[in-house]
Formats: sequence, structure tokens, C-alpha cells
Amino acid sequence: MSAQSGPGRPGLVKTVTSLANPLVKDIRALSQRKHRQATGLFVAEGLKLVADAIEAGWPIKTFVHAEKVSHHELVSRTAARVVAHGGLVLKVSEAVLEKMTRRDNPQMVIGVFEQKTVPLDAIDPAGATVWIALEGIKDPGNLGTILRTADAVGASGVLLVGDTVDPFGTEAVRATMGSIFHVPLARASIEAFKAWRPSWPGTVVGTHLSATEDYRAVPYEEPVLLFMGNEQSGLPEDLAGLCDRLVKIPMAGKADSLNLAVSTAVMLYEVRRGKLTV
Amino acid sequence: MSAQSGPGRPGLVKTVTSLANPLVKDIRALSQRKHRQATGLFVAEGLKLVADAIEAGWPIKTFVHAEKVSHHELVSRTAARVVAHGGLVLKVSEAVLEKMTRRDNPQMVIGVFEQKTVPLDAIDPAGATVWIALEGIKDPGNLGTILRTADAVGASGVLLVGDTVDPFGTEAVRATMGSIFHVPLARASIEAFKAWRPSWPGTVVGTHLSATEDYRAVPYEEPVLLFMGNEQSGLPEDLAGLCDRLVKIPMAGKADSLNLAVSTAVMLYEVRRGKLTV
Ligand SMILES: [Co+2]
Ligand SMILES: [Co+2]
Repeated sequence: MSAQSGPGRPGLVKTVTSLANPLVKDIRALSQRKHRQATGLFVAEGLKLVADAIEAGWPIKTFVHAEKVSHHELVSRTAARVVAHGGLVLKVSEAVLEKMTRRDNPQMVIGVFEQKTVPLDAIDPAGATVWIALEGIKDPGNLGTILRTADAVGASGVLLVGDTVDPFGTEAVRATMGSIFHVPLARASIEAFKAWRPSWPGTVVGTHLSATEDYRAVPYEEPVLLFMGNEQSGLPEDLAGLCDRLVKIPMAGKADSLNLAVSTAVMLYEVRRGKLTV
Repeated sequence: MSAQSGPGRPGLVKTVTSLANPLVKDIRALSQRKHRQATGLFVAEGLKLVADAIEAGWPIKTFVHAEKVSHHELVSRTAARVVAHGGLVLKVSEAVLEKMTRRDNPQMVIGVFEQKTVPLDAIDPAGATVWIALEGIKDPGNLGTILRTADAVGASGVLLVGDTVDPFGTEAVRATMGSIFHVPLARASIEAFKAWRPSWPGTVVGTHLSATEDYRAVPYEEPVLLFMGNEQSGLPEDLAGLCDRLVKIPMAGKADSLNLAVSTAVMLYEVRRGKLTV
């Protein structure tokens, strides 16, 4: 895929120093979920991350950088690439970057990208290692961290089930450290998930506090579907009932539970234990 | 240890509805590190967590609850216990709780506790399973999550090395989910750590991106000292050189690294693999 977002003609380079420029307000509005939904866009921050996303062919709409980093070789190369593919490049003041990102000390580079998700029926279990289904996840830092871990273990994707936090929100994207651009994301209602689940050919495993089987005792057969419940209440019974195996991660101390990003990571490293080598 | 903080005489119960009451300002100030350092106090939120801390004998100075939960059985029992041991109980309005905690929709119960840390020379390796040494950790959510995981695996304590984020800050305490009251915490300068390290009798293991040994290939001999570097740069060379073993957690995808709380958890579950059962 190319970094194309326009109709094939070259894009524009503009200089924006006025805080009142409508482009500033448009990008700033993307910190709100409703504006991300209305536009299908999201913001990622940081030169390495943005350049890496463009390199990987993720469609970029607007590339924003501080004027003072215009001379940076990777900035100018990336800007040229964006323009060549019909995107917009904005050279801005730091005050404009602060306003766009609602941050003091903002990154010197941000990108406005198109959201991409995979339809449920486009998930191909045949070539998959492990998909992670997350039901009702609420914390953006947890979701971003899980995407980062999914990338690190070579998972095939993350499926958001039911009402969840937005993976394209600023905090979630930041926590992915760039893995938002590498790990396929799908979404499904609980009903759609229930209808789809019987088509999964490999092991469907969930963690459950009332489970008695040790998570290390299961022979995980790829493609694995790892099903994790939300931070407050874990997997509800009807969804737990969809799993082939319910397992427990042992705990020794006084903690009641693990952080969701932690338990998902511990599970993923176990599921992929025989497949990963240094 | 008892929940005592006064000189043995019973404490007081006060009703506070004025936002101008100096007690409100004093507690609100504890959201800042300098005020926590000056007073040696910190704030924990939530009835279950606060009651659990008092039950465990952690010294409480002030127990604050919304008037509307006065009738709650655990609230009144906890309040009686605090007063009996010389602490202060504040019944407050929700507006006061909002101001104290700087939060909309605050918890209905908060506790002001004394900070407790263990001196470096009071760490007893003889009875230890694993201590986790964290060099320069910056993110409060990561630190709190690591304390929670340390609790869950039955670790013996967490040692903060060098300049780190404050474990008694609001976000860190919140992320511990109560484990701040269960896991011993120690602090050391880098110099003090270097001087102390040779006294450790078991395996000292660190993770390092340039390591070549698989983290699963090491025979971990308890007491283990797990040494983790900070989020930005990992272990510096001079500290890496203090480890008996440097190991790597394998990664398969395009992620450059794991979140620090995740890598620490994956290490801890491996270090304690033979010791934990469901
Ligand atoms: Co990347
Ligand atoms: Co507890």
C-alpha cells in the first residue's frame, strides 16, 4: 500500500503560525472520540513513529512538524514523501503544536492518519499465530500496552469485543509505541463475536479467576484465540463458556488480581513459548 | 503493628464541609511530591484498599469519608478503629472530597498514611524469594503495576535505585491496587547500591537488549535479585556489569521493546516458575 491519501496529485506544504487557523482546531478536535469517529482520523506523535508508519504504507492525511526541525534529514525526507503522495504538510510554530496536541512540551512532529480496522469476516485463522480478543477493555494505557506486547510476540491481531475504549485515542496510541501501525485491529459486538467464534479452528483459551487449570498446563494449538475480560470484572460467564479452556495464572501474595496488560502479556509469552527464540 | 499514629490517646471525629478548612488544603497538598516529602505522608483512595491497609497495621493518620457513606458497616467499623488508635476521622461533603483529591467523581473514602520504606541494610536476603531492583523508573503507572505484580508472585520487595518516580504519588499508589501496603519498598542511591550488591548471595539477573541468553535458560537460584533498567534506556553498562546473568526476552514482531511493567512481569513469572502453583 502507498502512503496515498489524495486523488493521485501532489499535496501541499503550508506554514501555519496562527492559533486561529481552522486546521489547528480540526487537529485539536481529534483528541475527542466523537471527532475521531466522525472523521475516521487519528493522531500519532513523534518523528520516529510517524516516519515508521509512512514507511509501512499507512495512509497519512497530514504531516505536521515544527519549523525548527525542518532541516532534520528524516523530517524533510518524510515531508517530501507525504507531498508526493497527495498529503498535506504543515510547518508550524511550537505554540501551534501545543494547541493541536493539548500538551506542554509537545513532540516536534505529529501525523494525522486514517484509522484502519479489519472486518471480522476478514480475519484469517489459517495463517494466524494468536489473536487476542479483549472484551470491554476500559483503560487506554492497557489497550496500547497490549497492542505493543501483541506486536512483540508476533501475534496476528487484536479483536475488540463489545464496548471498549478507543484504540485510536491519544493515550492508547502513545502506549503502543508504534505498534498501532503493525498489529491488525478488528472490532465486533458481543453478538457478532458469539456468532463468529465457532469458526475458530484452534484453541480458544480464556483466563478466569475461578478456573482451576494452570495456564502452563494447556497445549496451545495455533491458531490460538486468547480471550481476556475487562479490568473490573473479567470474562462474564456467557463469554467464558465460549472457551475451550479456562485457565488461571497462579498468584502467591495478597494481590487480588494482575493488571490486564500484565496478565495478557504473561499469557501471550506462554502461548508462544515454543515459538519464540532470542 | 497497630494502626496507631497518636500518642496512645483516642483520636477525634470532625465534620468538614467548608472548602476553606485548612485540613482540606493540607490533604490536597499531598498530590505534590514536595509536600509528601516534607510530611512523610501519602494518600490512598477507596474503602476496600484503606480498610485493608488498616487491617494490615499500616499507620494511618487521617481517615476521610463522605457523610453519605457513614452508615456503611465497614466505614463505621474502620472509623471506630482509627479513632481508638489515636487517628483523626473526617466526615466530609463530596465537594470537599473533590477538592482534596483534585478529582471529579472521587472515591467516597480516602486515607492519609505514613510512608514506610526499608533501609538498604535491613533487606534480608536469607529469607527472600526475589527482590526487584528498578533503576531510574520514571512512569508512576509502571511502578505501581510492578508493585502489584511483585505482590502477586510473592516477591520479597522492590528496591528503587537512583532517581525514580515517587512510589507514594497518587497515580503510582492507585496502580498498585493496594499492594503498596503489602510489598516492602527500599531506596538506594546508585553508589549505595553498588556497594551493597556484592552482599547478595543468590542470582543477580538483569534484562538487556544486547544480551544473547534466553531468559528461560537461566537456573534462577533464590534469593534472586532481578535488576531492571528504566523505560528510556534500560540498564546502563556499569550497572549491567553488576549482574551475574544478562538475559533477553525474545521478540518476534516489529516492536522495539516491551513496556517495563510487562517485561518485569514476564521475568518475575519465569524466575518464580517452579514455585507458583494454582
Ligand atoms: Co514500528
Ligand atoms: Co490488599
